Amino acid sequence: MESEMPGSMGTSASLVLRLGQTIFSIASLLFMCLGVQFYAYTSFCFLVTIKGLMIPWTLTLALVDAFSVFVKRPYRQVQLVSVIVIGDWILSFLSLAAACSTASVLDFMVTEAGSSFCDGEMCSRYQLSAAMACLSWCLTLASALFNLWLLPSLCSNTR
Amino acid sequence: MESEMPGSMGTSASLVLRLGQTIFSIASLLFMCLGVQFYAYTSFCFLVTIKGLMIPWTLTLALVDAFSVFVKRPYRQVQLVSVIVIGDWILSFLSLAAACSTASVLDFMVTEAGSSFCDGEMCSRYQLSAAMACLSWCLTLASALFNLWLLPSLCSNTR
Repeated sequence: MESEMPGSMGTSASLVLRLGQTIFSIASLLFMCLGVQFYAYTSFCFLVTIKGLMIPWTLTLALVDAFSVFVKRPYRQVQLVSVIVIGDWILSFLSLAAACSTASVLDFMVTEAGSSFCDGEMCSRYQLSAAMACLSWCLTLASALFNLWLLPSLCSNTR
Repeated sequence: MESEMPGSMGTSASLVLRLGQTIFSIASLLFMCLGVQFYAYTSFCFLVTIKGLMIPWTLTLALVDAFSVFVKRPYRQVQLVSVIVIGDWILSFLSLAAACSTASVLDFMVTEAGSSFCDGEMCSRYQLSAAMACLSWCLTLASALFNLWLLPSLCSNTR
């Protein structure tokens, strides 16, 4: 019964979570990169790097989930789920760090440093990018929690 | 044998971790607060708030661990450990967010915004505060991981 928990690896809820992560990550990357000189600021480079790591990871897992859902073969080995849980947790921490850095630097830029660093349109694009990064972090955390929850039941099944 | 794992609640390693968290949190708070106008910047207020939450939490748990170690009664209920694990994880995320925000705003202040926001001595005090916050986050994460590791063995013992 535990292995049917929605949100854990191989279910359709997990596929939705992964697709959400991918979409928000790509949106965050696009808002940050397109036509904006993001590489001038360390935090923004950090966000771009982390999103560049996250997009292949979530896209791969979304494909695995889609395969699981549509070809109907929910295979779950403990080793595989462990690797996914560890990767999810690490990416979740990095993603939170990047989103917070971006948001706080933006707040400082807008409220303290004045309009010399970003004008209206650029500021709102940066803000959209930070918001998308936060949303993508929330979904990553949800995936990580669901898969972590699945792990003990898998371990006790194999014993 | 699992319940003797070093670092989990009630062991001397856990006491050392908790004391380290308390000391680093207090140091971070003092470096940020004493004689510095931290309330002018949102990220610094966030750091002070989170450290204000963390210090009572880690101090209480350090006292519980000290009681456990010196009075020799390592009592471990699943409910208690669950609450501690959840609290540790939430504080660990908040602490990471605060440390990253402070560090990235500081970096922006020092490299981009010039010396109008902080002069030499203040900048280095802010930097020390951010470094202490990062160290305290590392120790909190270690405690959270050790206690999380302990949880399944407790659950299976009570079954």
